[in-house]
Amino acid sequence: MKELKLALLGFGNAGQAFGRMLLEHEEEIMKTYDTKVMVTAIATGSRGNLVCSEGIDLARALADLDTEKGGSGRFTDSMALSTMTTMEIVEWADFDVLVEMTPLNIATGQPAISHIEGAFKRGKHVVTANKGPIAWAYRRLRDMAKDAGVQFYYETTVMDGTPVFNLVEHTLKMAKVTEVSGILNSTTNFILEELEAGAEYDDIMARGRQMGFIEADPAMDIEGYDAAAKITALLNVLMDAGITPDMVDRKGIEDITVEDIKAAAAKGKVIKLLCKGIRLEDGTVQASVQPTEIDRSDMLASVNSTTSVVSITTNLMKKVSVVEHEPEIEQTAYGVFGDVLRVLEGR
Amino acid sequence: MKELKLALLGFGNAGQAFGRMLLEHEEEIMKTYDTKVMVTAIATGSRGNLVCSEGIDLARALADLDTEKGGSGRFTDSMALSTMTTMEIVEWADFDVLVEMTPLNIATGQPAISHIEGAFKRGKHVVTANKGPIAWAYRRLRDMAKDAGVQFYYETTVMDGTPVFNLVEHTLKMAKVTEVSGILNSTTNFILEELEAGAEYDDIMARGRQMGFIEADPAMDIEGYDAAAKITALLNVLMDAGITPDMVDRKGIEDITVEDIKAAAAKGKVIKLLCKGIRLEDGTVQASVQPTEIDRSDMLASVNSTTSVVSITTNLMKKVSVVEHEPEIEQTAYGVFGDVLRVLEGR
Repeated sequence: MKELKLALLGFGNAGQAFGRMLLEHEEEIMKTYDTKVMVTAIATGSRGNLVCSEGIDLARALADLDTEKGGSGRFTDSMALSTMTTMEIVEWADFDVLVEMTPLNIATGQPAISHIEGAFKRGKHVVTANKGPIAWAYRRLRDMAKDAGVQFYYETTVMDGTPVFNLVEHTLKMAKVTEVSGILNSTTNFILEELEAGAEYDDIMARGRQMGFIEADPAMDIEGYDAAAKITALLNVLMDAGITPDMVDRKGIEDITVEDIKAAAAKGKVIKLLCKGIRLEDGTVQASVQPTEIDRSDMLASVNSTTSVVSITTNLMKKVSVVEHEPEIEQTAYGVFGDVLRVLEGR
Repeated sequence: MKELKLALLGFGNAGQAFGRMLLEHEEEIMKTYDTKVMVTAIATGSRGNLVCSEGIDLARALADLDTEKGGSGRFTDSMALSTMTTMEIVEWADFDVLVEMTPLNIATGQPAISHIEGAFKRGKHVVTANKGPIAWAYRRLRDMAKDAGVQFYYETTVMDGTPVFNLVEHTLKMAKVTEVSGILNSTTNFILEELEAGAEYDDIMARGRQMGFIEADPAMDIEGYDAAAKITALLNVLMDAGITPDMVDRKGIEDITVEDIKAAAAKGKVIKLLCKGIRLEDGTVQASVQPTEIDRSDMLASVNSTTSVVSITTNLMKKVSVVEHEPEIEQTAYGVFGDVLRVLEGR
């Protein structure tokens, strides 16, 4: 039986959910791909790092971090505990696939970009759930992967495991993407929806924080930076746009008032933070993130709460939309899981 | 350069659009797959048949049938004109891929099933745009293809070239489908929408006929037979249901009155002809086509006119929906085109 060794950079909620999914499918993967998938390194910010080329005890690592079931919240497997830094793991540990799940730095894409470059330099495959590298350095990374003859997947970076990049690559062959649009940020979507329903801004924020999808510092979402990074990632991959998030014509929902929402409603419209990209006549791609009045009968108006949508227009299939309905952490994990399966198939 | 020979059974609007798409992409296909795709047989109901193992002049065949630009409406290429019947073409003509596009017989799936069986018996690949075989005989045909070691694709049978079957196979790996639902018949969708807007039934039918998507005999659509065939096809492929359209709990919109629609509207709902399939505890799959009241805020309520949607629920990705927005004949052609490209990749 063959082996596939994974190095996991980042092991938060999504990483742990991915770990559980991997354990649950261990036998099915062996049966389907005649391959044993092992985790040989896990790097975390504050829970310790594990490195073991014979394979880490993943169940134990998960149990260690499960404080609700008596775990200490830190790794305890003394056979695997390591003082290697994340970058040392990238450069020296024994693995076949780097799985990049470190926290996003939306302003630069670092250090995730360096992690990925380090893996490519060693001829390793990369799966990233971190959208920073796709938003800030896609073209360069894509070319590095090609030159190194390795695989590079990033389905999770937009709408979790919902097929978007894979959809175009595998199911819309020879079709040329001419336009991409979508509602991609659930925090702003939730806030706009609640404002329309008559809730007070402060109450909305408190409730969103409680529900776990409004960050302590929500500016990245509210001012449209997260949405800008996502539409950039989409356009870089699907239209070879070669842009960065700072090139997006971006406006968040920070200036949207209850009066604006009421005025839109009076016209039969709702306000949504719409992401959009089109190819201009000079061949460049123009990207925008803007609060936009949407007709209430439009499908986009029904995208509420944590649901998101991407619409992809091609020359051969006109407009096709994909909707992810109220995802949970398992759907993020599945994006990474599916990409690892693709690596298995592509080897 | 390799060759891939196609036999086209049926050459109506969709078949001709496929022919044009093939011609337009001839060079790109050669460049990408190092293969020349040729059409070596075309069978039609009333326009004559063409058979030529060296390749039919497809541009001429298309021009012959283009009566608006001076074509006679019948094939005139005397080098290729043939007295072979459709079944003789299946059994004797020189081709690698049978492309089944004959008119649907929704009550039996024949003669398309026999065409496909005939191709498999000769070890030929099959692409079908005809949903009859997938609704009436999928399991048997799938097994025949597997035993013959040939490829069998049918993306076009539900929502044209919009990825549904390919989406699950290529982008939701290892996820198990637990439920499928959708709005799949545009005739009934159009009628319900127009009734709600206050139009008279007879006017709606006249306009729909004029627009080309209400058939001369609309019973197959209105009584839900078309929708039943589509949900059956979906469930047979995605959930290995092994059912036939007569096993669907089917009710059309024939008894829906303007009063029903108004009563629904008063509750904030709209009536849609909803297709649905779920797996029961005993392992069997239960399928239904029923007029259903949908909350106006639900995404399904926004699926109007000729737009359709399929929602696929899996154990690993929860619910993902795919929407095809107001397709034209080119989107049907693309379904067949995409499947032919898959044959090229899979050889």
